[in-house]
Amino acid sequence: MTKHIPFNEEFLFRQLFDSESCTYTYLLGDVETKECVLIDPVLEQVDRDIQLIKELGLSLKFAMNTHVHADHVTGTGLLKTKCNCKSLISKISGALADVYVDPGDKVQFGKFSLSVRPTPGHTNGCVTYVCDSQGIAFTGDALLIRGCGRTDFQEGNSGTLFESVHKQIFSLPDNFRLFPAHDYKGFTSTTVLEEKTLNPRLTKSKEEFINIMNNLNLAYPKKIDIAVPANKKCGIQD
Amino acid sequence: MTKHIPFNEEFLFRQLFDSESCTYTYLLGDVETKECVLIDPVLEQVDRDIQLIKELGLSLKFAMNTHVHADHVTGTGLLKTKCNCKSLISKISGALADVYVDPGDKVQFGKFSLSVRPTPGHTNGCVTYVCDSQGIAFTGDALLIRGCGRTDFQEGNSGTLFESVHKQIFSLPDNFRLFPAHDYKGFTSTTVLEEKTLNPRLTKSKEEFINIMNNLNLAYPKKIDIAVPANKKCGIQD
Repeated sequence: MTKHIPFNEEFLFRQLFDSESCTYTYLLGDVETKECVLIDPVLEQVDRDIQLIKELGLSLKFAMNTHVHADHVTGTGLLKTKCNCKSLISKISGALADVYVDPGDKVQFGKFSLSVRPTPGHTNGCVTYVCDSQGIAFTGDALLIRGCGRTDFQEGNSGTLFESVHKQIFSLPDNFRLFPAHDYKGFTSTTVLEEKTLNPRLTKSKEEFINIMNNLNLAYPKKIDIAVPANKKCGIQD
Repeated sequence: MTKHIPFNEEFLFRQLFDSESCTYTYLLGDVETKECVLIDPVLEQVDRDIQLIKELGLSLKFAMNTHVHADHVTGTGLLKTKCNCKSLISKISGALADVYVDPGDKVQFGKFSLSVRPTPGHTNGCVTYVCDSQGIAFTGDALLIRGCGRTDFQEGNSGTLFESVHKQIFSLPDNFRLFPAHDYKGFTSTTVLEEKTLNPRLTKSKEEFINIMNNLNLAYPKKIDIAVPANKKCGIQD
């Protein structure tokens, strides 16, 4: 256990949960300039999220995704029609968006920014957004709390995921707090040190990790045939 | 929207969720001394909570409740059998526990403490635990995010609840962050200012509030006949 990096007093942080898909959406903002971003919004929760943004007097700059989700339809398309915001995703995701980011790019909102780290393996376009100044990172489905995203559909590759987590996430300072796109057991956050030492899959060797991932025998994702095509177009469904 | 009070870097804070009862359990600790407390643990989540406490190298001092819950069985009794901790609840709750607290008392863990504020109305024994140094409060079922606990069973009294929230919670600094015992829409926290200005029930006059609460027509709580007798005895079921 490590000491953590306290948030700047003007850094607004709200974690939001969608109970159907167990997805976490994150609202980050600058209390002073009022600019904010939403990471991984869920279609069915757009009204809730917009109401909160309005109640807090914020202005939504980007509705952004960590990757093309397979388990829920993103809220970005609907948010665009209801707010004056831009959609944002990694270029390599292959999805449509207003703004594409590449590894190393920064996403600015007010005085805060998120840097983009490539963390492919669950999908090719997966990225982790790191807010260096606040000591936090949004890992999407690359790294979950004591787990990780599955690698058996879309462009899943367990060897690639292992390298991504070790090179791009475990290389962050031990006391960085990590916020995933999902949790299924009621956990809300973890730290780099915790996952480096306690993650039952990612503390193993690469070979063992690949073997674990090859033998999960998970059910076919319920929503994948609707969600992936929709999410390739910002969540706009035909 | 207000600037918030950053956490001390040695203040450990983990919000945990039970999806069946939509209950939030809070793990608070001192990174240096390793002492920690659990607020409102849920019986079915005890193994998860103990594993996390062990993984973090913490020592559980108190398993404590904000009140005698009617919707889930508390984990305090089981925690006592599995950890060397004491159960704690307000004296006025009438429930059995190792340690009883009264309004104005302090619950110490490491260098941090929670002060006890009486917030009856949902039940007579409801208290709000305030961690003044970190600018946060745990409101139990007295104040929920944009809502409040129901007042139509146990010792519920809507007029009393109105006075409790206004006198004991809305009197905290505007930028104090509030963490409730439940949320049903995926919100995880709020602030005093937000609830003072945006809570649809508690921004009304006392008369209007009582009228709203009298006309909610809520279903009979599913677990109340099991949960309340069990929770009067620390969650130990006959």
